[in-house]
Amino acid sequence: MSTPAQFDRLHVVLVATRNPLNIGAAARAMSNFGFPRLRLVRPYEPAFREARSAVGASELLASAEVYDSVAEAVADCTLVVGTTAVRHRDLQHPLRRLEVGARLIRKHIASSRVALLFGSEKRGLSNEDLSHCHWLVRIPTCEENISMNLGQAVAVCLYEVIRGGKATAQPEKRKLATAGEVERITGILLEALRASGYLDRRPVNDSEDRIRRLLRRLNLPAEDTDAWLGMLRQIVWKLRSGKLPDA
Amino acid sequence: MSTPAQFDRLHVVLVATRNPLNIGAAARAMSNFGFPRLRLVRPYEPAFREARSAVGASELLASAEVYDSVAEAVADCTLVVGTTAVRHRDLQHPLRRLEVGARLIRKHIASSRVALLFGSEKRGLSNEDLSHCHWLVRIPTCEENISMNLGQAVAVCLYEVIRGGKATAQPEKRKLATAGEVERITGILLEALRASGYLDRRPVNDSEDRIRRLLRRLNLPAEDTDAWLGMLRQIVWKLRSGKLPDA
Repeated sequence: MSTPAQFDRLHVVLVATRNPLNIGAAARAMSNFGFPRLRLVRPYEPAFREARSAVGASELLASAEVYDSVAEAVADCTLVVGTTAVRHRDLQHPLRRLEVGARLIRKHIASSRVALLFGSEKRGLSNEDLSHCHWLVRIPTCEENISMNLGQAVAVCLYEVIRGGKATAQPEKRKLATAGEVERITGILLEALRASGYLDRRPVNDSEDRIRRLLRRLNLPAEDTDAWLGMLRQIVWKLRSGKLPDA
Repeated sequence: MSTPAQFDRLHVVLVATRNPLNIGAAARAMSNFGFPRLRLVRPYEPAFREARSAVGASELLASAEVYDSVAEAVADCTLVVGTTAVRHRDLQHPLRRLEVGARLIRKHIASSRVALLFGSEKRGLSNEDLSHCHWLVRIPTCEENISMNLGQAVAVCLYEVIRGGKATAQPEKRKLATAGEVERITGILLEALRASGYLDRRPVNDSEDRIRRLLRRLNLPAEDTDAWLGMLRQIVWKLRSGKLPDA
């Protein structure tokens, strides 16, 4: 198998991984299937050092990028996909069977960047992590033992992405906003909601995650981001301007 | 996923495995995908002891059978399949792509026993081992790094066997908001933009149409319409300091 240029566009993102063997195993599976881009969010520091210095640690591991947050790690991607072992996690995200999700990922990397997120060994992805995702994939493991080893989960997911053969899908018609752009819009919307008192009126713990998910469900086109930013900025400016009585 | 009775008929056979972590990883993947039958041929003895005594070693590992030869390990099977990383090993065996091979395995275990062989970490299956096989499967890894980690190879192979198994329902396509709902949201957004002075700052003839088109490009989900209406109403209320919009 050759490794088409679009394989560069799939970023495997490991969030808060603790075991150096798992980082190494993920890197090896990526190398097996031809995906060179690894990103790590808050890796357990000694684990990352150990994985990097391991005998045979590949270029791939050496060139892995480290981030402080999921938001930063996915900022340049237009599709963010989370992996989960759970069948009905909160039901707040569309959950796709791996084979279906992988087909969509393959299609997407024909023209733009995708982030594929894997959570920590113990807890998987948090709700906050998940709020950055457009949808989730689940590997169809059995009820009796749903939780896969991290390196094996990465291997199975990437295998499914290359499985359909050549990644030769047509580029998407409409370019989507990157995760970074969507996050900027989210930030300003949150500001507007705070200034308007909306967040006080509906005090729930995860309101920011909810708003984040709402925006990810919109398929926001890249061409429209400036317009949305402009509108929301104006609204925030007005809400904050001194002419209004402070609530 | 349930684990059909025929999954009992697939025997994963690890030949001359040396690393206890790999035996454990293979067992975990088998457990993930519902295949309970593990056979080991001449495992490196300390490795096997260590794997068995590992914390969390499953029943599966405890009930693994140990054999002195491949011949004995596959004796009760009617189909013996070898795994290889190499593309053209000797050409003495038919070599099938994993997805094709897995389909045949699935068919076969409906009525009789299959052995799926994995060689040692260093050398894979020997020619003697291969001589017991009816045919081989190859996981489509790339030329640059064809050799997979044993546990990951087992995971990928078993995933492919269960993959086609059940035609589970796809997640429902997300219901989109009706045009009427989108229009209500458009109306309130326009009110917010007017109240914030946004429309005065950008005086174009067709600004309302632009906003309307912007919203139609979002593929707004039906389930989210109330949330968007609520947020926008609150913003308008605040902008108007107390006067609720009439939409």
